[in-house]
Amino acid sequence: MPIIDMHTHAFSKRVEPLVAGKYDPMSNPYRRDMSPASRETDAEQGKILPGLMLDIVTRREMMAKMGVDIQVVAPAPAQQHYWAGEDLLVALSRVQNEDVAALVAQDPAHFAGMGTLPMRFPQRAIEEAVHGVDTLGLRGFQIDTRVEDLELSNAAFDPLYARLAKLRAPLFIHPLGFSQGQRLGDFFMVNSVGQPVEETLAIAHFIMGGVLDRHPDLDVVIAHGGGYYPFYAARMDHAWKVRPEVRRFTADAPSTYLKRLWFDSCVFSPTLIDNLVATVGADRVMMGSDYPFDMGDDDPVGLVRQAKLSDADREKILFGNASRLFRIA
Amino acid sequence: MPIIDMHTHAFSKRVEPLVAGKYDPMSNPYRRDMSPASRETDAEQGKILPGLMLDIVTRREMMAKMGVDIQVVAPAPAQQHYWAGEDLLVALSRVQNEDVAALVAQDPAHFAGMGTLPMRFPQRAIEEAVHGVDTLGLRGFQIDTRVEDLELSNAAFDPLYARLAKLRAPLFIHPLGFSQGQRLGDFFMVNSVGQPVEETLAIAHFIMGGVLDRHPDLDVVIAHGGGYYPFYAARMDHAWKVRPEVRRFTADAPSTYLKRLWFDSCVFSPTLIDNLVATVGADRVMMGSDYPFDMGDDDPVGLVRQAKLSDADREKILFGNASRLFRIA
Repeated sequence: MPIIDMHTHAFSKRVEPLVAGKYDPMSNPYRRDMSPASRETDAEQGKILPGLMLDIVTRREMMAKMGVDIQVVAPAPAQQHYWAGEDLLVALSRVQNEDVAALVAQDPAHFAGMGTLPMRFPQRAIEEAVHGVDTLGLRGFQIDTRVEDLELSNAAFDPLYARLAKLRAPLFIHPLGFSQGQRLGDFFMVNSVGQPVEETLAIAHFIMGGVLDRHPDLDVVIAHGGGYYPFYAARMDHAWKVRPEVRRFTADAPSTYLKRLWFDSCVFSPTLIDNLVATVGADRVMMGSDYPFDMGDDDPVGLVRQAKLSDADREKILFGNASRLFRIA
Repeated sequence: MPIIDMHTHAFSKRVEPLVAGKYDPMSNPYRRDMSPASRETDAEQGKILPGLMLDIVTRREMMAKMGVDIQVVAPAPAQQHYWAGEDLLVALSRVQNEDVAALVAQDPAHFAGMGTLPMRFPQRAIEEAVHGVDTLGLRGFQIDTRVEDLELSNAAFDPLYARLAKLRAPLFIHPLGFSQGQRLGDFFMVNSVGQPVEETLAIAHFIMGGVLDRHPDLDVVIAHGGGYYPFYAARMDHAWKVRPEVRRFTADAPSTYLKRLWFDSCVFSPTLIDNLVATVGADRVMMGSDYPFDMGDDDPVGLVRQAKLSDADREKILFGNASRLFRIA
């Protein structure tokens, strides 16, 4: 059975010319809050990433080393640029989506594509989602854990979520740092802590903000095993039990909703994969590497194989679940 | 063997008159970021908390219900008021410490005390720590996860940490919300997410900021099972492996240091106690309830008994570890 890595990234060369000079890169919290030493590491990494992303021969070589047969490819989160105005943001989403589709078209037996959406303008996002699925053959869309100041439970997104459910296009929620990461500069915590925090907030809004109730057919995948939420869910359940203002929003304890979300396996520990599966079920976890970033896992298949899974559950995580969700034969 | 609850709180009636009119309660992030509905719940809780804290007959009744023989009592985190100037802050710490000691003096067979420290003024904190241990008989000190803008790894605290280690007085790290919790107002996340985030930051600074290396004899206890850190440590280990700027600070992967910290069992799930013990060892976990707050556990002994522990490990968590750390016979 072909092994599917559902969490990998590509780069769109057409994005940078469209945004150059139009914003201050330091206004992005990920860069703003990162220590200068981490910015240096990022700059070094920036020299090799485009090759790892765009050269299809290199990608296939890396996949062979990793034991991966098929990659689901999404844009680089840093290229999503939600600050942009309507026409620019729509243009940015479009070029990223076309470039992902063009990468996939080079070798559709080994790649499937996810696009992105101009989330600040939900009606335009609907149009882009339809175009992405119907015309470009994309299998879903990666978005950030927030849209500028809006949380993902904001009612503005409901028409989009309804349309995505109808399109059977999953949303892949992938953060870039934490919006309030002013204390996360040290130890590269902008990423190692900030991203799990954003994932926790996104899950909280999908569950406790009622998005899953309003959109039972919407498929939502959270990157990096869902961050902190699935691994420490009981405190939020306790708040739900003892606080009327938390109980107001959901009929069941928040953790019961975790089994309605999807998660990747990019957690760097076989024990954490075991814990994740114990909490959300093996039907909801999919192998993902975060290729080709340094915060990705270069042996994601080995990690899943080290987890204490039944053969059937291991196959679901390495292949079955992603095959079903992204409709990969 | 007497069962010890090492995480409970008291209230000092003398604090409020000292701070009244001197600060805006809404400047505290915990209140600032909380939704109005959560403030209402807090106001209701505020009516019953002083009785549960200060009436020793009520405390003993609650302890009997919970199957607890001895409580270690620390101040209420909201009374620590680190914004205060030097003389006021020292006075605030002193009255809290005297009031904890007075509570304990009513029934020293069933209570032991932890104080607090005027952390913004480390030399005064040393004096207060010595007074607290030598004169008031306190067994350790609760402090917040940060001191205004300073992280706990700041070199300003090194003389204090050295003195606490010499005094054999453990530090108990207990947050009050998250300093950057502007997005945590919904769903009472100021507490359910913000506190585990603060605990994660505190642990990161103790480990990666080198505090444990500089002070090998300092005992540090982190509330609420250490928050997110012990349950999702592998991502930070991965950052340490791949990023030179993270590797610079510690000789070993950050998670190896977790076994040098202490943690309470206030995590609301027997599975999480199992996971915590698997990560940090049964020698480093102690039963704690967070009594009498609504975010405390009213069956903390039952929770530990539900965990899949050996008899020896269960006894360590219910009694042995806290007995050793706080020198309770």
